[in-house]
Amino acid sequence: LVSVLSSAIIVYRLPWTWKCSKLLMKFIHAGLNTIAMILAIVSMVAVFEYHNARNIPNMYSLHSWIGLTAVIFYSLQLFLGFAVFLLPFAPVPLRAALMPIHVYSGLTIFATVIATALMGITEKLIFSLKNPAYSASPPEATFVNCLGLLLVIFGALILWMASRPHWKRPPEENAKVLRPIGGTPEGTEAESTMTDGSNADKSDLRINSEAARKQNLKIDEAGQRSTM
Amino acid sequence: LVSVLSSAIIVYRLPWTWKCSKLLMKFIHAGLNTIAMILAIVSMVAVFEYHNARNIPNMYSLHSWIGLTAVIFYSLQLFLGFAVFLLPFAPVPLRAALMPIHVYSGLTIFATVIATALMGITEKLIFSLKNPAYSASPPEATFVNCLGLLLVIFGALILWMASRPHWKRPPEENAKVLRPIGGTPEGTEAESTMTDGSNADKSDLRINSEAARKQNLKIDEAGQRSTM
Repeated sequence: LVSVLSSAIIVYRLPWTWKCSKLLMKFIHAGLNTIAMILAIVSMVAVFEYHNARNIPNMYSLHSWIGLTAVIFYSLQLFLGFAVFLLPFAPVPLRAALMPIHVYSGLTIFATVIATALMGITEKLIFSLKNPAYSASPPEATFVNCLGLLLVIFGALILWMASRPHWKRPPEENAKVLRPIGGTPEGTEAESTMTDGSNADKSDLRINSEAARKQNLKIDEAGQRSTM
Repeated sequence: LVSVLSSAIIVYRLPWTWKCSKLLMKFIHAGLNTIAMILAIVSMVAVFEYHNARNIPNMYSLHSWIGLTAVIFYSLQLFLGFAVFLLPFAPVPLRAALMPIHVYSGLTIFATVIATALMGITEKLIFSLKNPAYSASPPEATFVNCLGLLLVIFGALILWMASRPHWKRPPEENAKVLRPIGGTPEGTEAESTMTDGSNADKSDLRINSEAARKQNLKIDEAGQRSTM
């Protein structure tokens, strides 16, 4: 689950994927997140069935509370992401406004999932290791502690990759096209969930002024982020 | 500890502090982090003494491993932050290069501390609640679970505040001064740990070209971030 989530997060940051079209990238991002969601649901059903079979109460631990909160926010994130960024109906200003929230909540959910996993590992070690106990540091305890530490390092690396501005997917060729004054942002919106090169015909238009260039760059940037 | 850490993180993001000088802000940031470090050391000594008094082994749990890792990185962060950003010896390029790393590792350590606290809460609930057990959800368990959930929400809010670009401390008046071509960045370096208005005498110099303006803005931005 954590590895699929990580792949979904860093898919825009891998240089070899910069050659893929933006639409393909969005489908990979959405697809990986959908797989992660299915894995989360399957594992939750497994936990409930295991608890019921062994007459262990459900949802009593902090691990379960935070885990369920993360899954609820994750499904909300998936639904909103699908509705706003994948379907071609949302206007560019809405996409641009929601993108920072989408990125922040995605990374926060990722960090929360790792914290939940660490709590789950702690619980499991305490409950499972009885003779010798967890506090006697048997080899299993040391081994699983190392896995937990690696999980933290892994999560930190993913957050590093996801937060570096210069590892951001560069603007596409057709997104760099300069539009004249009055160039409406609909072009950016249209390309967002459509195909590449839809405004390649605009490429030979010349800029009229410095102000227009700046305005267009701003729109392009918003469009790039909002449709990334 | 978490609240002092949080205060240290968001101190640059509070609008009322934008009126304070940059140097004062840096001292508050360093001071709060020093207090947090002292609290962390005191609490670690307390844990070791408690374990020794009760004949509980030290450093066997994942909670202790990750907690100690966080404290080690935190002391490194404090030492480097003091040497590079507070003492007036480090050149601006070094400050600018280290600032993103300083911000990232600060926030990552903060998230790791929260994860460590959640693991500690989980351990404590399992070990302390025996009759009725944690799994029977006595009122204490529900209460402490709520505290754990609030801790996650609190941490998420702090990370939100710390990562919003428009909540960033705006550049100081004297940092906005435009310098002519060839204006060396030493001025920025000098003001970094020194006083305000050290280059107010440059304020009436006129820009020579658009290129110079851009170059200066870039230097100012780097200086602002690196000395923030």
